Amino acid sequence: MDAISALAALDTPAAIIDLPRMQRNILRMQQRMDALGVRLRPHVKTSKCTPVTRAQLAAGAQGVTVSTLKEAAQFFSDGDTDILYAVGMAPARLPQALALRRQGCDLKLITDSVDAAAAIAEFGRAHGEVFEVWIEIDTDGDRSGIKPEQPELLELGRVLHDGGMLLGGVMTHAGTSYELDTHEALVALAEQERAGCVRAAERLRAAGLPCRAVSVGSTPTALAAMRLDGVTEVRAGVYVFFDLVMHNIGVCGTGDIALSVLTTVIGHQVEKGWAIVDAGWMAMSRDRGTEKQKRDYGFGQVCASDGTVLDGYLLSGTNQEHGILSREGSPDADIARRFPVGTQLRILPIHACATGAQFPAYQALAADGGLTAWSRLHGW
Amino acid sequence: MDAISALAALDTPAAIIDLPRMQRNILRMQQRMDALGVRLRPHVKTSKCTPVTRAQLAAGAQGVTVSTLKEAAQFFSDGDTDILYAVGMAPARLPQALALRRQGCDLKLITDSVDAAAAIAEFGRAHGEVFEVWIEIDTDGDRSGIKPEQPELLELGRVLHDGGMLLGGVMTHAGTSYELDTHEALVALAEQERAGCVRAAERLRAAGLPCRAVSVGSTPTALAAMRLDGVTEVRAGVYVFFDLVMHNIGVCGTGDIALSVLTTVIGHQVEKGWAIVDAGWMAMSRDRGTEKQKRDYGFGQVCASDGTVLDGYLLSGTNQEHGILSREGSPDADIARRFPVGTQLRILPIHACATGAQFPAYQALAADGGLTAWSRLHGW
Repeated sequence: MDAISALAALDTPAAIIDLPRMQRNILRMQQRMDALGVRLRPHVKTSKCTPVTRAQLAAGAQGVTVSTLKEAAQFFSDGDTDILYAVGMAPARLPQALALRRQGCDLKLITDSVDAAAAIAEFGRAHGEVFEVWIEIDTDGDRSGIKPEQPELLELGRVLHDGGMLLGGVMTHAGTSYELDTHEALVALAEQERAGCVRAAERLRAAGLPCRAVSVGSTPTALAAMRLDGVTEVRAGVYVFFDLVMHNIGVCGTGDIALSVLTTVIGHQVEKGWAIVDAGWMAMSRDRGTEKQKRDYGFGQVCASDGTVLDGYLLSGTNQEHGILSREGSPDADIARRFPVGTQLRILPIHACATGAQFPAYQALAADGGLTAWSRLHGW
Repeated sequence: MDAISALAALDTPAAIIDLPRMQRNILRMQQRMDALGVRLRPHVKTSKCTPVTRAQLAAGAQGVTVSTLKEAAQFFSDGDTDILYAVGMAPARLPQALALRRQGCDLKLITDSVDAAAAIAEFGRAHGEVFEVWIEIDTDGDRSGIKPEQPELLELGRVLHDGGMLLGGVMTHAGTSYELDTHEALVALAEQERAGCVRAAERLRAAGLPCRAVSVGSTPTALAAMRLDGVTEVRAGVYVFFDLVMHNIGVCGTGDIALSVLTTVIGHQVEKGWAIVDAGWMAMSRDRGTEKQKRDYGFGQVCASDGTVLDGYLLSGTNQEHGILSREGSPDADIARRFPVGTQLRILPIHACATGAQFPAYQALAADGGLTAWSRLHGW
């Protein structure tokens, strides 16, 4: 069966993974990390999907990064033991972390808070558990973390180490890479991310504190980094699918985007040049991440059902289960003949993590047109 | 147990329904519809939740509106038979609609497309099924629908009626009400919505076509309409919870918003005046619906865990599982002492439909502090 026939049998909207593209994306990142001499610890928050993660590990990734303890439990039950929970630990979740460790999960926690570190150490001692904790470092002012030169870095390290926990390393995420769109700027930010995280590790070590892991990453900086001296591992998530935000940043082509939403035309507003489709924000997410980038793709780029980009046709508006499909610039007076009711189209997403999250399962489309439903996690 | 103690036992993020507020919202809309002499057919796409819908029906609502056939199947299995599927029918979904009708579901379809109508009639005749179809009317240029005076209205009616289907009525949704923020403008749009839909019904009837139902609605127009002569029913969804978009439109106070996201502080960036919380866009959705309204609430209004609005504190940024909480205007240098790590807060949502959709279940909080998990539908 060819791909178009396979897709024709699906109810819409459906989240389609183009498996050859996904596999190419996985190999590209893995080969790059291999060449730079660092481990790749994929962030599975993008897919939250076991077979996708299996493919990343099969290609050479080591360990996973998760954004919730529910993901940790899921991937541990899949047999992954080396799991980094990369959101600052809330002390109220320590019983969940303890339960996972007691089952044999080598779960690593992070924090940038002296108070949280003290709570982790106290809880660990009370339960006879040595939690492994990494310190979150702020290398670009994006969100969380302690700056490499901040005095609190050593204080936090001592609270953990002297408190009997395993100070396992430092980690950072240069999230401002999402605001860039030139190779030179990405190279510079990647070096800033690397240097800042390595500097934090050096300060800890110079103070006599252990710091085995030096973990950096975001998809754009991972793909731009020229060297990663002193770094032990890279974390990246969205590279597995890519999306239009990544395309605008300049780290992929539209032909690399492995996730798309299959949709059906359900009506038209001919005088406006609109086709109405059944992919609204419930399917695409409300993400408007390209709005302030160099090219605004609205809620997504329209493609034929075989994946061919239909240049200039965008999902320009969304309600819950309705999408408005239109041509940029001048309205297409021929829209109803071009895309009759019942036509299937595919929409490339603005933000793959957010779009995927709207679906209970992906439909994995193989090169031979074979389709397999791959479930994904939902909720916390 | 009081509410704060009950919430303290929850893992975060969690979607909290304030039941007294929800019940008040339900009664307000029902009483209004009763006074205007029309039926209320709630749009259950907002909650996608059985107990919420039960409460709406118990208060006097008749029938439900759904946005997907999965919702139709769910609410039919709950015992609801009078179901309007209010998204233009894709012919490929006719077998699903047929299966529901054959099980006894009085499912009503809609379309604004002559081609789709022809496909419905052909499929119905081929399977010996008289589908009930309502024609979607465009009364405000928002999205879908045939304009009341368009020639295609009668053509579409005849395709259905002469094709052996039951032309059950007309329906419209004045979605541009979301762009208004004065009572006068809402009153005018409600009248435009009413008059346009009634006019469409009159044209059909004058042409000898049946048109029993005249269905209008959006939460803002439903709450603003001064009269609904000629209308048989009103559809509205978000009123059951309300949200900050509705507050800006002027149809509710923040004290009426029945949905909030419980979150926990996990860190700070003191020099920026930020608290980092575990409600990111995965919990709140990426909806920025207040961005162009008279007051921008970012990704949500911060409240204490007892629900008290903390004026000026907003969720100003989000990543997947991280939210940035800050004070409008000047940074709060005291943020770490005001909201220490572990503090629980509640965030009022920008858009209740989109926020609810991020959660597999709500936590329904009763006046006595009792908490019950209420599951909700996910996917298609």
